[in-house]
Amino acid sequence: MMQLYFGPGACSFVPHAVLQAAGIEFEPRMVKLHKGEQNEDAFKAINPRSQVPVLVDDGEVITQILAIVGYLDKKLAGANVLPTDAVARAHAIEALSWMNNTVHPTFTHFFMPFKFTKDETAQAEIKKFAAVQYKQHMLDLQALVVRAKAQGHEWLTGAHFGPVDAYALTLMRWGSMAGVNPTDVPQLWAQIEKTAMHAPVAATIERERLKLNMFNPT
Amino acid sequence: MMQLYFGPGACSFVPHAVLQAAGIEFEPRMVKLHKGEQNEDAFKAINPRSQVPVLVDDGEVITQILAIVGYLDKKLAGANVLPTDAVARAHAIEALSWMNNTVHPTFTHFFMPFKFTKDETAQAEIKKFAAVQYKQHMLDLQALVVRAKAQGHEWLTGAHFGPVDAYALTLMRWGSMAGVNPTDVPQLWAQIEKTAMHAPVAATIERERLKLNMFNPT
Repeated sequence: MMQLYFGPGACSFVPHAVLQAAGIEFEPRMVKLHKGEQNEDAFKAINPRSQVPVLVDDGEVITQILAIVGYLDKKLAGANVLPTDAVARAHAIEALSWMNNTVHPTFTHFFMPFKFTKDETAQAEIKKFAAVQYKQHMLDLQALVVRAKAQGHEWLTGAHFGPVDAYALTLMRWGSMAGVNPTDVPQLWAQIEKTAMHAPVAATIERERLKLNMFNPT
Repeated sequence: MMQLYFGPGACSFVPHAVLQAAGIEFEPRMVKLHKGEQNEDAFKAINPRSQVPVLVDDGEVITQILAIVGYLDKKLAGANVLPTDAVARAHAIEALSWMNNTVHPTFTHFFMPFKFTKDETAQAEIKKFAAVQYKQHMLDLQALVVRAKAQGHEWLTGAHFGPVDAYALTLMRWGSMAGVNPTDVPQLWAQIEKTAMHAPVAATIERERLKLNMFNPT
């Protein structure tokens, strides 16, 4: 049976929800990031980079969202992990890449500015700048939702729930922590609320014990 | 015929070299990034994010290295763009993801710190910090080379030249601009020099008019 190492609320939510949606049996293994379990020897023996997600299948260790998603897409043929049409598939990977190399790192600048400098004044500047950028990313994400709707798609990449939908939920949830008020991106937020109610996603949220809207108006 | 928009020396080198290695006809279109052509209306009509690479196939516009590589892998079956074995393929995408979401952004912090703050003092701190991180990334990249050699592989992901090899060359070349002396990573550098002499890579370097070693000892 495949094992998935995930941190509650981390980007590992993406393969976690995808596995849940595929309807196969797998073993979810929680890594308590707030307790630093990712830096303990037991986890570092699995992933020396101390990052989640990690998928273990028959002893093979696979890290990185895009690698895990691609692997599951190949392994779980028929589960519609990624679209089958070549162009639609490329656009799904394009969206995942943008989320992974642009939106996600912007949140890291907001949430963990110490990863980019030891200087505390510089950290405060980085955080402030990232919060502004993150708002723009949420508007861009909303544009993706609007385009999908205009094309008659129920989900972001077509007729089936997939990793792009799960990543959108994660990134919007992080946005609510980074000062983005869901009411400022109503079309995006409506899609995220709908996603959160999709049965396999609801089960994943339940297992990770997540609160969707973390926005603090004060 | 497919068109590839690339910027000389940019990460678009990856699909550029992959297309060249596939031995198919394609139309390389140079975007002069140093002249800001990526911000002109003509290019923004193709990619509003002003980024290279962009692949255009039969009117379909595909951006992001991982999406383009995945698309070419599907389209050019038999060209060995990615390994065919599921696990080897996942590890190739894993390496590409790490390069794309970790090493590449670290270079951006060194090369364009103004993308993360307007404060010039903070920019200097970011740049200094990124240079140290980048050296570590090159050591990690060298470890990847050493592991591939130990497994008897000629190239980073197996018996065939692929996108991971092209990305490694690009990232090491950027490293030489960021103060990493090639002599400090001899096994990596030997692999990059070999890669640069591989005929399709040499042709790509020639078309982009690149100097491989940009290290300035002063």
